[in-house]
Amino acid sequence: MLDPRQIQQLHSLLETQRVATDAATLQSHGLDWTRYYTPAPAAVVFPKTTEEVAALVRWATQEKVALVPSGGRTGLSGGAVATQGEVVVSFDRMNAILDFNPVDRTVRCQAGVVTAQLQDFAADQGLYYPVDFASSGSSQIGGNIATNAGGIKVVRYGMTREWVAGLKVVTGTGEVLELNQGLAKNNTGYDFRHLFIGSEGTLGFIVEATMQLTRPPAPLSVMVLAVPALAGIMEVFNAFRQRLDLTAFEFFSEKALRHVLARGQVQRPFEGESDYYVLLEFECVNSTTEETALLLFEECMEAGWLVDGVLSQSEEQARALWRLREDISESITPYRPYKNDIAVRVSAVPPFVEALDAVLAREYPDFEVVWFGHIGDGNLHINVLKPDALALAGFREACERVNAEVFALVRRFGGSMSAEHGVGLLKRDYLDVTRSPEDIALMRGVKAVFDPLGIMNPGKLLA
Amino acid sequence: MLDPRQIQQLHSLLETQRVATDAATLQSHGLDWTRYYTPAPAAVVFPKTTEEVAALVRWATQEKVALVPSGGRTGLSGGAVATQGEVVVSFDRMNAILDFNPVDRTVRCQAGVVTAQLQDFAADQGLYYPVDFASSGSSQIGGNIATNAGGIKVVRYGMTREWVAGLKVVTGTGEVLELNQGLAKNNTGYDFRHLFIGSEGTLGFIVEATMQLTRPPAPLSVMVLAVPALAGIMEVFNAFRQRLDLTAFEFFSEKALRHVLARGQVQRPFEGESDYYVLLEFECVNSTTEETALLLFEECMEAGWLVDGVLSQSEEQARALWRLREDISESITPYRPYKNDIAVRVSAVPPFVEALDAVLAREYPDFEVVWFGHIGDGNLHINVLKPDALALAGFREACERVNAEVFALVRRFGGSMSAEHGVGLLKRDYLDVTRSPEDIALMRGVKAVFDPLGIMNPGKLLA
Repeated sequence: MLDPRQIQQLHSLLETQRVATDAATLQSHGLDWTRYYTPAPAAVVFPKTTEEVAALVRWATQEKVALVPSGGRTGLSGGAVATQGEVVVSFDRMNAILDFNPVDRTVRCQAGVVTAQLQDFAADQGLYYPVDFASSGSSQIGGNIATNAGGIKVVRYGMTREWVAGLKVVTGTGEVLELNQGLAKNNTGYDFRHLFIGSEGTLGFIVEATMQLTRPPAPLSVMVLAVPALAGIMEVFNAFRQRLDLTAFEFFSEKALRHVLARGQVQRPFEGESDYYVLLEFECVNSTTEETALLLFEECMEAGWLVDGVLSQSEEQARALWRLREDISESITPYRPYKNDIAVRVSAVPPFVEALDAVLAREYPDFEVVWFGHIGDGNLHINVLKPDALALAGFREACERVNAEVFALVRRFGGSMSAEHGVGLLKRDYLDVTRSPEDIALMRGVKAVFDPLGIMNPGKLLA
Repeated sequence: MLDPRQIQQLHSLLETQRVATDAATLQSHGLDWTRYYTPAPAAVVFPKTTEEVAALVRWATQEKVALVPSGGRTGLSGGAVATQGEVVVSFDRMNAILDFNPVDRTVRCQAGVVTAQLQDFAADQGLYYPVDFASSGSSQIGGNIATNAGGIKVVRYGMTREWVAGLKVVTGTGEVLELNQGLAKNNTGYDFRHLFIGSEGTLGFIVEATMQLTRPPAPLSVMVLAVPALAGIMEVFNAFRQRLDLTAFEFFSEKALRHVLARGQVQRPFEGESDYYVLLEFECVNSTTEETALLLFEECMEAGWLVDGVLSQSEEQARALWRLREDISESITPYRPYKNDIAVRVSAVPPFVEALDAVLAREYPDFEVVWFGHIGDGNLHINVLKPDALALAGFREACERVNAEVFALVRRFGGSMSAEHGVGLLKRDYLDVTRSPEDIALMRGVKAVFDPLGIMNPGKLLA
């Protein structure tokens, strides 16, 4: 915890009203969407400028105080939780769009700009920011970059990494670095921009980003298709992507769908039920695109991979179909799901899913397991729901026991133990599933270069 | 230099015939396309496997011998030259394509696979490897990655960086790392894959790469357009990219064109002469694409930005038009050009080019200056030709004097002192044009983590 002198120092670094030590703020800003930790920060500070962030870091190096960066707090791996008397550095007050360049199609944002704010700004300029996910309304650009956020358009547009043309960061010694300056081409040594993307605040804090925009897509059509067997999903994927430029290829299970329907806000897409569903989206580049899609649908029906399906007839219907997939996460939140976010190479999805299904059926006979994910990228979200009768601690213990088996499979298939959620606190002790001991030792070495005192989000990513 | 015991040790690490110390091999493999250095390696070795590379590095750590990686030796910044008794590690014998996965659309290559070999392999599978440049026939994938090679399709497909799904590297301590394992999504800490891309062999050697392929483009059409004034180039770019998906947007000067025509292999594209030309390429996605292109051409003529132009009527003609641009580098090679490879943000190109033109006209009144470049990415190649009468040393000195002014401009415009050629030996002392002292100090720190003994391509990138 901080002593009164240190609190006083914070007050002199920022204005008093931007240093919070009240219980409500400590609670709200000490936690992210990972509901497994008890927040206990010493203070929450709200800088407005890069200079203030740099001054805070320099103060922290002098006082040996740990800092935790805090964006929209929508993380699912505990990357932005403060449980040990850290000072939380919130970017809520650094939410200005600083500059737009129509020729470069870039936007320079402060780290606290909300994803939807950037998306809307891009749309107002006749352009498009394509990274999108359920938390777009509250997640912040700085957090998206620090966790290399993925989402529902990765199959076409890639991860957040692809859209970062430049970064301004403050290192663990309080130095300010300008990384890549928004350039399209710049081969002048180690690209630290990419090192900071996905570093989860452990090397330094992102204070500003120059984000690349692109042209908006042609009108998008959405199909939801009923797939009776897991094995059929990748067959359908292969068939469609041969002839259409897919902008999304998502899947979810009947169990997931029922949770969404139970909220009474959307309808079942067609009468027939099926164990699995696929949602795919594509650009209608010309008048024959939808015909092609319907032809592909018929071919997949004949092959037995599909049993039913629907094609959106309007933007409104497309939005409604998307909700079947996008509302899953929120609809199961009351069950305190234990989330696995794993990936394998796309080609390995069928055998991996089969093996995983067997493990989960054997290990979780009493738990409800909800599957969904970005299967066009090889990314599966496995959500285990907590039975009401079981206490959180016992439930988490059970899940972590099963993790050993799930992660053994991930390792066997050369996969990732965190596809898009990052590592944070929650997955930290499983890092060696995907990274070798030598690799992890080098990560520690690199962290020590940027954060020699170990004050930047300590304990996250690396123990 | 190596003592006889050390040469004997190399013979026992590899087969004797894969350790060369003859003058011809030392000469050929101690140099790249940068013609400013006198090669003086102690030996050239030709490993066949990752294990052999790792054993060589471990040997080098014990013997404190410096190693220089060597690919197709087409580099233009002296990144792969050996001037100080180093051991050159050539990847010529590691040229196998190891694996192809049609679902993932990935190819696993040894580092010595030649770019054209990968392009042809992709085409044989009905797929496409889009990174392309004049040296594709001899440059190697490992070198492309180590220098993050760019080329003529960056405006559409990005740099080599975008196409690397996984890397196997040997660090400066002889450890073998598997980076990203070919995964589309993998957020498990620092992405060292991106750190190695563009690191010019200074952190370790790339021994294997998993490269991403994509669908081939629709048939490509090429236009060459006559632009009377520099300022018109970006106007034309803006007009065309609003309505066509450009796959290339290149420019060159009349002076450059004359060197190509002087070789007598290709024809002037149309009768009229112009100070500058633009070559653009686009996918003919449907029957109206060419009409759109011709309409845009007319609009640009009316605006006065263009005075003439031609649209390819066949694949053969498209290839011939491309040669007007692609043959420039080779046609001026006899003049020992001093090459600047600089970039600014695309929006900054017009004022930057105007300022640069003034500097060059003032500083190089007696030298011929040939302009060309990938101007759709903000990347200009300025080639100063050596007058016959001037000795190489004196010419280089004159160029380096002017560099101070050119780079002052680059700095003022927030640009890059090396857009795609990398830093190597030639540009090393100008690194601070684009990177701050703090940034460079961190680069040294990161190098020390991966290469604590400083044996991996020492003196390149960092002094």
